[in-house]
Amino acid sequence: MLLDEINRVGDIKKLPPDQYAGLAQEIRDFLIRSVSLTGGHLASNLGVVELTMALHLELDLPKDKLIWDVGHQCYTHKILTGRKDGFDHLRQFGGMSGFPKRNESDCDAFDTGHSSTSISAAMGMVTARDMNLGDETVVAVIGDGSLTGGMAFEALNNAGKLDSNLIIILNDNNMSISENVGGIPKYLNTLRTSMPYLDLKKGVYDKLVGSKKGDAIVTTIRRAKNSFKSLMMPGMLFEEMGIVYLGPVDGHNIDAIRRALREAKHFDRAVLIHVITEKGKGYSPAERHPARFHGTAPFEIETGIPAANSAKAAWTDIFSTVMFKLGERDPKMVAVTAAMSEGTGLRRFRIKFPDRLFDVGIAEQHAVTFAAGLAASGFKPVVAIYSSFLQRAYDQILHDVCIQKLPVVFAVDRAGLVGADGETHQGIFDLSYLGSIPNLTICAPKNKWELSDMLKFALKLSEPIAIRYPRGEAYDGLEDFRSPIEKGRAEWIYREDEIVLVALGNMVSIAEKVREILKAEGRHVSLINARFAKPIDEEIILEACRYHSLLVTMEENVESGGFGERVLSYMNREGLGTDYLNISIPDTFVTHGNVELLRKELHIDAASVAERIDRKIQVAL
Amino acid sequence: MLLDEINRVGDIKKLPPDQYAGLAQEIRDFLIRSVSLTGGHLASNLGVVELTMALHLELDLPKDKLIWDVGHQCYTHKILTGRKDGFDHLRQFGGMSGFPKRNESDCDAFDTGHSSTSISAAMGMVTARDMNLGDETVVAVIGDGSLTGGMAFEALNNAGKLDSNLIIILNDNNMSISENVGGIPKYLNTLRTSMPYLDLKKGVYDKLVGSKKGDAIVTTIRRAKNSFKSLMMPGMLFEEMGIVYLGPVDGHNIDAIRRALREAKHFDRAVLIHVITEKGKGYSPAERHPARFHGTAPFEIETGIPAANSAKAAWTDIFSTVMFKLGERDPKMVAVTAAMSEGTGLRRFRIKFPDRLFDVGIAEQHAVTFAAGLAASGFKPVVAIYSSFLQRAYDQILHDVCIQKLPVVFAVDRAGLVGADGETHQGIFDLSYLGSIPNLTICAPKNKWELSDMLKFALKLSEPIAIRYPRGEAYDGLEDFRSPIEKGRAEWIYREDEIVLVALGNMVSIAEKVREILKAEGRHVSLINARFAKPIDEEIILEACRYHSLLVTMEENVESGGFGERVLSYMNREGLGTDYLNISIPDTFVTHGNVELLRKELHIDAASVAERIDRKIQVAL
Repeated sequence: MLLDEINRVGDIKKLPPDQYAGLAQEIRDFLIRSVSLTGGHLASNLGVVELTMALHLELDLPKDKLIWDVGHQCYTHKILTGRKDGFDHLRQFGGMSGFPKRNESDCDAFDTGHSSTSISAAMGMVTARDMNLGDETVVAVIGDGSLTGGMAFEALNNAGKLDSNLIIILNDNNMSISENVGGIPKYLNTLRTSMPYLDLKKGVYDKLVGSKKGDAIVTTIRRAKNSFKSLMMPGMLFEEMGIVYLGPVDGHNIDAIRRALREAKHFDRAVLIHVITEKGKGYSPAERHPARFHGTAPFEIETGIPAANSAKAAWTDIFSTVMFKLGERDPKMVAVTAAMSEGTGLRRFRIKFPDRLFDVGIAEQHAVTFAAGLAASGFKPVVAIYSSFLQRAYDQILHDVCIQKLPVVFAVDRAGLVGADGETHQGIFDLSYLGSIPNLTICAPKNKWELSDMLKFALKLSEPIAIRYPRGEAYDGLEDFRSPIEKGRAEWIYREDEIVLVALGNMVSIAEKVREILKAEGRHVSLINARFAKPIDEEIILEACRYHSLLVTMEENVESGGFGERVLSYMNREGLGTDYLNISIPDTFVTHGNVELLRKELHIDAASVAERIDRKIQVAL
Repeated sequence: MLLDEINRVGDIKKLPPDQYAGLAQEIRDFLIRSVSLTGGHLASNLGVVELTMALHLELDLPKDKLIWDVGHQCYTHKILTGRKDGFDHLRQFGGMSGFPKRNESDCDAFDTGHSSTSISAAMGMVTARDMNLGDETVVAVIGDGSLTGGMAFEALNNAGKLDSNLIIILNDNNMSISENVGGIPKYLNTLRTSMPYLDLKKGVYDKLVGSKKGDAIVTTIRRAKNSFKSLMMPGMLFEEMGIVYLGPVDGHNIDAIRRALREAKHFDRAVLIHVITEKGKGYSPAERHPARFHGTAPFEIETGIPAANSAKAAWTDIFSTVMFKLGERDPKMVAVTAAMSEGTGLRRFRIKFPDRLFDVGIAEQHAVTFAAGLAASGFKPVVAIYSSFLQRAYDQILHDVCIQKLPVVFAVDRAGLVGADGETHQGIFDLSYLGSIPNLTICAPKNKWELSDMLKFALKLSEPIAIRYPRGEAYDGLEDFRSPIEKGRAEWIYREDEIVLVALGNMVSIAEKVREILKAEGRHVSLINARFAKPIDEEIILEACRYHSLLVTMEENVESGGFGERVLSYMNREGLGTDYLNISIPDTFVTHGNVELLRKELHIDAASVAERIDRKIQVAL
């Protein structure tokens, strides 16, 4: 096995070139086998095997800096830097992260997870190098999907004025997670097919040069501020911004990539190398269905079929079904997604109402303000974005939607702990950042029927509203509790005395378990389904305080600015003396791992909460 | 007076064309006179008089939709829509806003204030129009500075695939508020100077066409996927993205702009009209110093000199001086600004250390992650951005700086109420959105010496830290209180019993006045300077609770997720029974107006706070 000889960074350089193809094959086999057992990102990693090998052959890591945009495509990089054993516990609690992590290896130059950050970070490193009079090479590897994020453009605009070297690898597989959208992807597509076009242009040049009149023309054109270049080479969009364009290069040809890298190093400018790769390369199920093998659960290698498929519908599936139904009833309802029509469950809506689904690319800021424009014109947009990605649009939600009180519905998917993707993807801040915004209503459903009811309610509200719901299986308990949704009104589930649990969204089902544990201890426990994180139901809190000696709020969000603090502030304002306990996520980033395990670690699982309540009561006595 | 005939939208169309120049002159005189009395935005408004007139002549408002990016250049638009009387109380409490407001006029299609939002909103309106089978024209007017914001690029990328009409006016005055930076502005500059170049290209074309060989070449080139266009016309960058480029057009020639608008309406695509304007046009002090007349206080018309100049240094001035001094001591210290080196006080630093000041354009997201890259490479970046604009970078602060715990210092200027600019510019959310982020320390100085001390402390901390300070005069009281800054430690100012005020930042000086009022009533009042909003000083709160019956926190930020809620949560966790009162900004957007007046309205001025404390004590009795 060639892989046995790859135990630390640089080992790849010891292999003779005729072994590269063999190593690439072994890496692919290893990745397919590993990910089939643990789950993880597959298609993107299969696409960059040769690109990563070429980078490791040309760079001197860790001295040189290599930044992976988004970062889920770093598996081969991890293998080549001595971390292949880590794949046994990939993305598991205590195991190796699925993303670059500076605290895992000094060859991981910058932590990533969200899209479009790599060029900015690389610009910082280039600037630092130049001030230090250093000579390290700095490389950002960014996908064509990430290039549609505005932040990448901000960085390119700044890179255009660089007078020292920065290498940007555009890893172009013609898709982000779903298909790409917009002018830039369309433009890249013309570049991809530009090989014959290059020849054609060379033909023009040959015709011009040589004839007397032709020579004069060439001279005149050259004088025309270099616009001749755009006739002679593709990539003018980048060139116009001041960035040298090299390519396109075959991303599965190690030699070609190495040549381009060596050429790129010679420029005292920002250089973009356009590398064409194929997502899922070398594993036919992933080649055929790259989106399904973007992030995958464990699967059977022969067929590509997931090993265990949950019988229960996920929250996203419920959202998907309800959107489909509501779309039929209300022609003014439209949906907006940021390169996530699959992930957010809008695929069915898109198929049924192709003209009413707007996928804007990885562009959360534009998504939100675009929706504001639609709402200002009488439409009812539902913007479906994951909790942690919606962080990108905090200002737009506040500034473009909520100041004008425009009726935009935010479907905040993956709110709460998400598990294996770790720190960058946990949706544990939305109640806080959304909660600070005036005019915004925030709610969370206890079970799958309530998600449906809340969506219907939201579309009728005619004000900005966010509905947050988690990753994973939708809760299908408590089906008998289905009182109508009213703004700012909570719902009694069980009414006793002594202790009252006020739980928000997915914490209601955990609160049920807490209640069982406490009741087994002989306690009397009430349960309120909060429904609204903002505005809170002051009446029900007042009433709950009257008949209980301890009120406990439960939410899967950090404490600061969350639901519980709003309740406590109200209790204090009203002088309600009832004891209060806040169950929420501590002030810390939460690592990757199984969600159940993470809840235990964070002391927000049912057993821990029951224990914390017991302790609180002990202290009070 | 021609202006007397302009009393409602459309009145301009009644004037004969030979009166347009006269009207433009009257509008300029009116703007200069008005703003000289009330203060406001001047240079940008003088630059778009003719552009606005041309738009009003060609559009049918309010049916057609006109969106002003940023919006501070909407004064002529307000005059032409019957709001000239509003200029008497421009930007004053209860008076007319300095920005477009839908609730002021149905000719204001979309509220703006922050940069780079207009094309996204316009895309929403275009989409709505097309679904409604409407025929209104939608126009976004965006400055060249705003075009460097990533969000504008996200929108352009989506506009590139439009198959219906959208008009984007690029109002190009070669500056945002300060000078412009990056590849795009440089690119625009080549377009601006492209008139002779166009002639040259026309010359090439003429030479080619007509000769036999030439004709063949032209045909070959044309076949080369339209790349010939880039030889024949400027604006290839936009064309490559799929957007029709028209221009450049003289922005002070009403006829030329009208012709371009009429031409633009004919395309079933997004069309960008490149209009060249001069900031400050027609008022020589503003032409010479456009940055000084961007937003100005009242001034003397003859000289352009501000009527009343404060003798006291502003918080920004203190920051400016300290940065300058610290820069001399520590060569690793660098500064990053987003098109605001003047506004944030970094001008002196830039002059002294031109290689260590990085102005990235209106690109807050890039600014923060660029700083993260610098910090990861051993530098000490200070990122100076206004509180309300830093909202744009919430995700980058969380994801790129704080997860990796990189030592970036955020200098959060204009934190708290800012006054005349209103809702979009009030810095009243930063304690909340920053407070939700793990690993981030947040502090605020009570007076000018403390800002200096905190900056020095921050640069030594080696962790992410934000220092928030307000607009306006720096407080120079309490100069004897200057205990060393320690992370998470507050400072006793006055130590009595009964009531303890725990005030953060600029609220310390208000707390002093509150204390005087209460002492005059015979109460015993202690005062703590909180210094840190996060982490809070738990020890001092514990001690304060022990010796007082009422604890009052004071902050100029919304309540949700703010300093006070953190203190209350701590008090609850520790079972401290002391009465508690939270003084903060209610859950509402805050309109424009004098800051003193706004504080009264919000009940956070000294008299109101004293009254609220009295009431709280009455209830407790």
